[in-house]
Amino acid sequence: MEKKLGIIQTQSIVFNEPVKLECGKSLPGVTVAYEAYGALDKERGNAILVAHAFSGDAHAAGFHQGEDKPGWWDDLIGPGKALDTDKYFVICSNVIGGCKGSTGPSSINPVTGKPYGLDFPSVTIGDMVNVQKKLIDRLGIKKLLAVIGGSMGGMQVLQWAVDHPQMLKSAIPIATALKHSPQQIAFDEVGRQAVMADPDWRGGNYYDSGQPAKGLSVARMLGHITYMSDKSMEEKFSRKLKDDKYAFNFTAPDFEVEGYLRYRGDSFVKRFDANSYLYITKAMDYFELLPQDFLREDIKIDTRFLVIAFKSDWLYPAYQSQEIAKLLKIKGADATYCEINSTYGHDAFLLEVEEETRLIKHFLEKTYKTV
Amino acid sequence: MEKKLGIIQTQSIVFNEPVKLECGKSLPGVTVAYEAYGALDKERGNAILVAHAFSGDAHAAGFHQGEDKPGWWDDLIGPGKALDTDKYFVICSNVIGGCKGSTGPSSINPVTGKPYGLDFPSVTIGDMVNVQKKLIDRLGIKKLLAVIGGSMGGMQVLQWAVDHPQMLKSAIPIATALKHSPQQIAFDEVGRQAVMADPDWRGGNYYDSGQPAKGLSVARMLGHITYMSDKSMEEKFSRKLKDDKYAFNFTAPDFEVEGYLRYRGDSFVKRFDANSYLYITKAMDYFELLPQDFLREDIKIDTRFLVIAFKSDWLYPAYQSQEIAKLLKIKGADATYCEINSTYGHDAFLLEVEEETRLIKHFLEKTYKTV
Repeated sequence: MEKKLGIIQTQSIVFNEPVKLECGKSLPGVTVAYEAYGALDKERGNAILVAHAFSGDAHAAGFHQGEDKPGWWDDLIGPGKALDTDKYFVICSNVIGGCKGSTGPSSINPVTGKPYGLDFPSVTIGDMVNVQKKLIDRLGIKKLLAVIGGSMGGMQVLQWAVDHPQMLKSAIPIATALKHSPQQIAFDEVGRQAVMADPDWRGGNYYDSGQPAKGLSVARMLGHITYMSDKSMEEKFSRKLKDDKYAFNFTAPDFEVEGYLRYRGDSFVKRFDANSYLYITKAMDYFELLPQDFLREDIKIDTRFLVIAFKSDWLYPAYQSQEIAKLLKIKGADATYCEINSTYGHDAFLLEVEEETRLIKHFLEKTYKTV
Repeated sequence: MEKKLGIIQTQSIVFNEPVKLECGKSLPGVTVAYEAYGALDKERGNAILVAHAFSGDAHAAGFHQGEDKPGWWDDLIGPGKALDTDKYFVICSNVIGGCKGSTGPSSINPVTGKPYGLDFPSVTIGDMVNVQKKLIDRLGIKKLLAVIGGSMGGMQVLQWAVDHPQMLKSAIPIATALKHSPQQIAFDEVGRQAVMADPDWRGGNYYDSGQPAKGLSVARMLGHITYMSDKSMEEKFSRKLKDDKYAFNFTAPDFEVEGYLRYRGDSFVKRFDANSYLYITKAMDYFELLPQDFLREDIKIDTRFLVIAFKSDWLYPAYQSQEIAKLLKIKGADATYCEINSTYGHDAFLLEVEEETRLIKHFLEKTYKTV
């Protein structure tokens, strides 16, 4: 019988000391929601930190009680899988600024007793990593076997490599970039404008009245286009009609692809906070690692890098991953670049399980053996 | 001294007879706004019809009284230019469903005495061409030297070739497709949802209260991303900040690209009707020419085709133009395919003046000489 992770509970740790942020402001304290799978070994040398993407959360693997959908990267995390929980201790935490248990704009502001809303200070990828570091410290881990993540998760991986290279035995940035291009910023900005155009957004103070559902849904619809590829949309939808003929009106969707996007938009509204949408997309847009940020020569590090990209990913095109790999090589790091020949677009980092497993499993085993 | 077209006035023709539409409904009559440049020769054999893109209009060249911006394709139309008005009689008309003088959802419904709004029937690219045909007939032109257009203009070109091949000496579809892919439909659908999410849209009855400005602006911002390329955005904006530092809030744009998109969104609201946005994007999404539609073997035609695409155009990728050229070749048509090596993305059809001029001028001269 196949071994399984089984029922998982999200845990949380509260840090009561103030957390200074890059914008200059501070949070009086932060809560970090996280999950952990597998067991920490005696040497505390088998810990892997998984960083989630934009709309992800701490629930990366296994099942929550009563739910029939597993965590977002369950295909890669578990007994015998790429991140083998029989061998490794795998941790995933919700980013600050998020809305799945870690402190974010929907959390209660201790000063007012009400949700922060736009009083929440701006957070950056650096701030997210800073709080993850607190969690790793609290868990008593001195060195991570790996930090791994796709998309915004990959940005956190790179930020870890910049901020705490001596704490990383390896780093696996997937489908990500050293910085957002103007096109990536532009897509985020359209999403933000869609949210803020909705009068139900109320300048961010909607927690009593309900989400800006229409605006947030439009933002997510756009997101989904950018996560797929021209080809994967053709394969999935082509020009199939919902009801075998044109509706010739605007309220009913004519094409299946329209119905799909509306459905994805509506579901997103039920699970994601609109203000978190604003804060986290901004954090991605602010993200920019410069060559001089990377691997200072005065620090002796042994981090191995595995950089993964996907051919049909046009949101985080392969050239951006090639830039990461090139920079790492120039800095003399042990870096491997792999481009997976997928048609899934950016979503490939969630879907190309077999190819990713082959690459990552081997890489982790080799890293684990290296003392 | 360089010859110029000078001051141009938009003209209009009213057709009082009912116009049957593809959706099954009829319009009781239509007004067609058009402009014409140059003079019709005695044989009426030098007429070129220019079909405009989604948000274009009849004002393709020259200047309107008191305006300092010329028509949208002034670079290509005029004395000595690609569409040489010293030789050719160039016509451009606003599509029905539009908002620049031809009958559309903002026109007065003769039944109610109020703007149509959503009572306006659905129109298709076929309907647009049908009305253009009425205009060409009225002008006494039996055969067009060419019909030319980019993007949605190219769809009209292809529709002309399907519906009235015997009336075309040549056809120049630019940066267009035989049908919208699900990705193209998806982008249009997000734009429509953004418009309809705006409470100021009021189910299409906003003509007394003002445009759904925020929603329409969001839709146009998205449009502009798809008209450019990753590379052209990098060249134009890179990560330049508006005020040399992060605003760390959401109301002010941090990056130049954000300010640019907001500006383009706002200007669009001043010049384009939101309901026309819905109707015309739908017309593009409905557009689908099948192989059997093209060049029936029982009709003897002599139409020459010049199919033009642009390398960095990812909204209407070159493979879609290659499909057009391939189909024409299979049908035994005289078709040439040219791919211009531009970084401008879809906007290239408005910007790659020199390359387009070289191709089109020569092609038209050769077509004109052929009797």
